[in-house]
Amino acid sequence: MSFEFRVLHKQGKARSGLLATPHGDVATPLFMPVGTQATVKGLSNRELVEIGSQIVLANTYHLLLRPGPGRIERLGGLHGFTGYQGPWLTDSGGFQVMSLGHRRVISEEGVEFSNHLNGDRTLLTPEKSIEVQQELGADIIMAFDECPPYPAERGYLENSLERTLRWLERSLAAKTRSDQALFGIAQGGVELDLRRRSTVETIKFDLPGYAIGGLAVGEPKEKMVPVVDLSTDLLPEDRPRYLMGVGHPEDLVAGVALGVDMFDCVYPTRTGRFGYALVDRGRLNLSSARYKDNPEQIDASCDCYACQNHSRAYITHLVRAGEMLGLRLLSLHNIRYLHRLMERARAAIASGRYGDFAREFAARRWPSGTPEWFSDALERSGMW
Amino acid sequence: MSFEFRVLHKQGKARSGLLATPHGDVATPLFMPVGTQATVKGLSNRELVEIGSQIVLANTYHLLLRPGPGRIERLGGLHGFTGYQGPWLTDSGGFQVMSLGHRRVISEEGVEFSNHLNGDRTLLTPEKSIEVQQELGADIIMAFDECPPYPAERGYLENSLERTLRWLERSLAAKTRSDQALFGIAQGGVELDLRRRSTVETIKFDLPGYAIGGLAVGEPKEKMVPVVDLSTDLLPEDRPRYLMGVGHPEDLVAGVALGVDMFDCVYPTRTGRFGYALVDRGRLNLSSARYKDNPEQIDASCDCYACQNHSRAYITHLVRAGEMLGLRLLSLHNIRYLHRLMERARAAIASGRYGDFAREFAARRWPSGTPEWFSDALERSGMW
Repeated sequence: MSFEFRVLHKQGKARSGLLATPHGDVATPLFMPVGTQATVKGLSNRELVEIGSQIVLANTYHLLLRPGPGRIERLGGLHGFTGYQGPWLTDSGGFQVMSLGHRRVISEEGVEFSNHLNGDRTLLTPEKSIEVQQELGADIIMAFDECPPYPAERGYLENSLERTLRWLERSLAAKTRSDQALFGIAQGGVELDLRRRSTVETIKFDLPGYAIGGLAVGEPKEKMVPVVDLSTDLLPEDRPRYLMGVGHPEDLVAGVALGVDMFDCVYPTRTGRFGYALVDRGRLNLSSARYKDNPEQIDASCDCYACQNHSRAYITHLVRAGEMLGLRLLSLHNIRYLHRLMERARAAIASGRYGDFAREFAARRWPSGTPEWFSDALERSGMW
Repeated sequence: MSFEFRVLHKQGKARSGLLATPHGDVATPLFMPVGTQATVKGLSNRELVEIGSQIVLANTYHLLLRPGPGRIERLGGLHGFTGYQGPWLTDSGGFQVMSLGHRRVISEEGVEFSNHLNGDRTLLTPEKSIEVQQELGADIIMAFDECPPYPAERGYLENSLERTLRWLERSLAAKTRSDQALFGIAQGGVELDLRRRSTVETIKFDLPGYAIGGLAVGEPKEKMVPVVDLSTDLLPEDRPRYLMGVGHPEDLVAGVALGVDMFDCVYPTRTGRFGYALVDRGRLNLSSARYKDNPEQIDASCDCYACQNHSRAYITHLVRAGEMLGLRLLSLHNIRYLHRLMERARAAIASGRYGDFAREFAARRWPSGTPEWFSDALERSGMW
């Protein structure tokens, strides 16, 4: 099996590593752009490679509905269908069923829902999710889980995490392809004892990687940090840790400090489509009239095509005129921004100065004072 | 002045040539992609260069309204503002005022209209059009003309062409920049005597280039061919001839046969956004379910990024899912298709086999028989 993870450098709880997959090695910590419908919105494969994307996520829920996993399989799986030959990861559909499906009925069997495209009823089960993910053919696939909303009652969380464990067992039993790595997902909301139970039980399956699920669903960051800290304390050192759905720059810097290796989020592309450009001090609203005459690039330190070739004034014009190129350039820049952030993080860990890196990041991001949750994350990691 | 045109090869009425502009030489015959709002919809500058775009058109009407010509001038003109450093051409706004403006009042002074963005009243005159085009800074600028609708009464056409001649005189008088070439535009609808009068009078101004205006506005192709034929008979051999707003592949092949050097049209990008891909036999509707499982590329003979990297099935998925990348890839391919068509035309003229080229094109385009208007164009050119 061509799936292997090695930690190369450690500092405090933070680590950098190398993850080998059937479609190539990737350096961690890393950010995965989201290709919901088998395309990262607005970007070409060539651009993904150029900006340093290492692994791309696709959504099982969306591709199940359209164009259908059988079709993608016949056309060579995600790699052949899209032409993107690097590693792919597919989620299980569990999260999207809850966020996009209507009239959901959750049972021990799975989740029945009316899809958001034509309202047809579909039953997604652990077996079905794995079947679909095997047809899609990603390098990393995810166990079918139930992602509870925030806030949720303890009783709900408890039932949900126990069911997620049973679904993990069924996911594993359904898996037949040996060239895909299945990651388990720990749940438990922000209740630390439930999170501990879920994580400890998930680890028993001795999987090639583990995800911290159910976060970034509306809980305050003060509650997220202790959960991530506990999770990475419990998770084995020699397996990659994936914090699902997290993609704000400050969350990445804090997550890496706490020992997370992988992140994904639609944030960079979505905020780009709303006209925002990510920079160290936050984001620039390029749909604002204030940039109409600004000849500077988005970020003088950025090496992306948008920053190397265009001014804020031009991108502002494109955004205000509703031109596709504006959204393209902003999505490109924003993903490149997160990739550069992770490149800087990897270099900082390798040279033993991640604490400085995180403090410098915080000083630029919050000139008037670092929020407590961020300092807390660094303290827990031994680097504040 | 760095503006010069040389005819390199001739065959029948068709010719290939080289047009020198302050921002580089371009080989004719050529197709100009349209960057209405200072961006060719969906494409980056890098892509434009890669697919062989030689000169890009921008619309004075749109840029006058947003972001404003003064702003573009301060940011380095179209070249600096957009970062596209090749030659640009701007139209005069005359056509858009008629097609997009509301409550138009045409007078000897100019055209007053309510713009399509916020309804503000604006007066566009020859002087204003030239002032704006000088601020935009394109290499080629166009005289302010009145483009009559089709059909139009003879009286209307006559008044309109006379006024267009007076506006040409005022356009020239208003022009102060010596690094821009001003082209005049002949009108006269499809009335051959009026077209002759307009062309003969326009030529008297001894301009660096001439446009055939007022075509492709709804008239049948049978009526377009004699007008183009007459126009190129009258226009001087040593000046470029620009057939405005024409961009269907078959119209380009016929136009080149009749001695046209330049074309522009939104057709390749617009039809791309509607899901169509241009191929020699017409166009493929990639939003159609019939291509869902088709692993072939759009066009096996095409060297564009879309054809080199993606299947019809994938592009069909993108189009049906409303993904930006689908529109990008189709726009890219369609413009590349027209550029390749003109490259093939140039090579055919250079080797004295344009007639064969045009007949082969017709055989692929219309397997069941070439339409009369197309044969008529080739006959008039001496190549059928």
